[in-house]
Amino acid sequence: MEFKYKDSDPVRLSPDRDEIIALDQTKLPNRVEYLHISTLQEMYDAIKSLAVRGAPCIGVFAGYCMALLSKKHCTLDKDDFLSKLKEDGKHLDSSRPTAVNLSWAIKRQLTLADKCIHSGQNPENTTERLYSEALEIHEEDIRMCMCIAEHGLSLLHDGDGILTHCNAGALATTRYGTGLGPILLGRERGYNFHVYSDETRPLLQGARLTAFELVNAGVDETVVCDNMASLLMKQGRIQAVLVGCDRIAANGDTANKIGTSGAAIIAKHYGVPFYVLGPYSTIDMNTPTGDDIEIELRDPDEIGSMWYKEPMAPKGAKFFNPAFDVTDHSLITAIITEKGVLKPPFEKSIAQAMKGR
Amino acid sequence: MEFKYKDSDPVRLSPDRDEIIALDQTKLPNRVEYLHISTLQEMYDAIKSLAVRGAPCIGVFAGYCMALLSKKHCTLDKDDFLSKLKEDGKHLDSSRPTAVNLSWAIKRQLTLADKCIHSGQNPENTTERLYSEALEIHEEDIRMCMCIAEHGLSLLHDGDGILTHCNAGALATTRYGTGLGPILLGRERGYNFHVYSDETRPLLQGARLTAFELVNAGVDETVVCDNMASLLMKQGRIQAVLVGCDRIAANGDTANKIGTSGAAIIAKHYGVPFYVLGPYSTIDMNTPTGDDIEIELRDPDEIGSMWYKEPMAPKGAKFFNPAFDVTDHSLITAIITEKGVLKPPFEKSIAQAMKGR
Repeated sequence: MEFKYKDSDPVRLSPDRDEIIALDQTKLPNRVEYLHISTLQEMYDAIKSLAVRGAPCIGVFAGYCMALLSKKHCTLDKDDFLSKLKEDGKHLDSSRPTAVNLSWAIKRQLTLADKCIHSGQNPENTTERLYSEALEIHEEDIRMCMCIAEHGLSLLHDGDGILTHCNAGALATTRYGTGLGPILLGRERGYNFHVYSDETRPLLQGARLTAFELVNAGVDETVVCDNMASLLMKQGRIQAVLVGCDRIAANGDTANKIGTSGAAIIAKHYGVPFYVLGPYSTIDMNTPTGDDIEIELRDPDEIGSMWYKEPMAPKGAKFFNPAFDVTDHSLITAIITEKGVLKPPFEKSIAQAMKGR
Repeated sequence: MEFKYKDSDPVRLSPDRDEIIALDQTKLPNRVEYLHISTLQEMYDAIKSLAVRGAPCIGVFAGYCMALLSKKHCTLDKDDFLSKLKEDGKHLDSSRPTAVNLSWAIKRQLTLADKCIHSGQNPENTTERLYSEALEIHEEDIRMCMCIAEHGLSLLHDGDGILTHCNAGALATTRYGTGLGPILLGRERGYNFHVYSDETRPLLQGARLTAFELVNAGVDETVVCDNMASLLMKQGRIQAVLVGCDRIAANGDTANKIGTSGAAIIAKHYGVPFYVLGPYSTIDMNTPTGDDIEIELRDPDEIGSMWYKEPMAPKGAKFFNPAFDVTDHSLITAIITEKGVLKPPFEKSIAQAMKGR
């Protein structure tokens, strides 16, 4: 079974609306397997295990989860219905506390349910509204990705060599993705890009997920080690670097997967434009600069042993495993959002964009 | 069985002089196993399989090989002795054609044998001379490493954080190594360095070999992914970068393991000194600049599958696997040789050093 970004989103509703069909991303790239999720426990496990991953994708998934849970409780009386739904939402929200989109989607559905019930609708009708809202959340994400893809593509040229880092594609969102959007859209329109994907140590999202998406989409795709960017740029193979983002500070400093800032420094050295792609929701005006972003430290085993036949470092070796780094705004050529392209000075362009939002 | 860089060189002669005892580097870091090598076929296989690796180390090994082969043939008459020894040397030399030190050591021993025989000595006495010469080659390497370690250490300070890339330690040479020499010598003298070793994708020489050496030597050692250098430097953890080298051009451009030039660019960005360590024999005056150095491309499987439980990239993905890159001389703070520290402008300092050689 193949994965086609335009036909099969990583999460979707079954035709009878009783199940969520979710691509199990822990099995990629070797097995394309879909989970059929209907119980609260299965929903919780899918997020916890990273079978469903990528902040926007988790948000879409949570929207559907709340609709299914609503259906389960719709024979109860109004008070019990609301109380059960809130209880389930709270449990689901605890599956992965750092994913902002998870809380956001659950809260959005609970607020809607509350509003429906208090305006006199019964649980059955309310459930219908939650199904519609889940589809709306999904469609909003698709529209957002499509807009980012369009704006990003306007900066690229046929034949460009493009470097990517980590996975900010359809698997992390729905449909086009953020960082990979312009590549997929360009491919549809006949652009021949040559994409080099950093394998992205230690979790190999580039080799496992980005390469999987791009190969499936028929893009000319080459996996490289993270330490090859300098050689690629020196040889003139790269005309643009495209990356996603986890948080953008008010001054444009951008937190993203570990290794992003190094790629940006090397790009600056060789005069290659470095583009950050992400929705407005990633811009955090409460974070003045990158220095205010805390860097998550992860399990040492991810570096030394996780994927390997046997451990690849000696007993007694320590590991340092930061999951993110912050790219200074001075290294970023442009930030590409669903509403357009923000350019330096970012402090000004971001403030202006957020005001008009 | 442990590996102690001061007591157990990766290659040495057995007490009865009938065998070469060589650390099998393909088994590190999980198993410390020594090969006992006496036949021509075993010698050939040890180099071919990378059990014996690192250009200087291969040179020392080849010196011993020629002495053992000489002993095997020393009951023949003079002409047959020389002819057999040359034949064996030619076969051994074909085991890994790119390792300059291999040819160099074989040629040095054959020239000596020729000279001895033609000045009237018999094959038995000539064999004794080849054993002495092998020990001399070994001792020269130890002296060279020691001098580089001393000069390198003069540039470091107690408490320094040091970033290394690939393996340029005792395993690649004998005793102190080149890039790791100042760290090991400093440790003996009570310096408390904090060493961060790039794991060095795709072949993981940093995690497998450098970490192994440094942990065994009691150095405070932390393995990181190659893409973490920028974060480490931004956090102020790195005061110097130390790397070895495969070839230095006349203008100071330096070929070394893939990823070295990226680390140099990032070091320059953060104002961290970047030191290249290697013997004079690495300077190639016939190579005017780094543009004249051809970059070896290696097997794609080294990136996508070699170490893993199952392949880590999708079917259909391509790989680009350059083994080296060239660091521009403008990014190098100093080149540390056995005769002293060369500083910019390198075109001038290298020419001067090579003249007085």
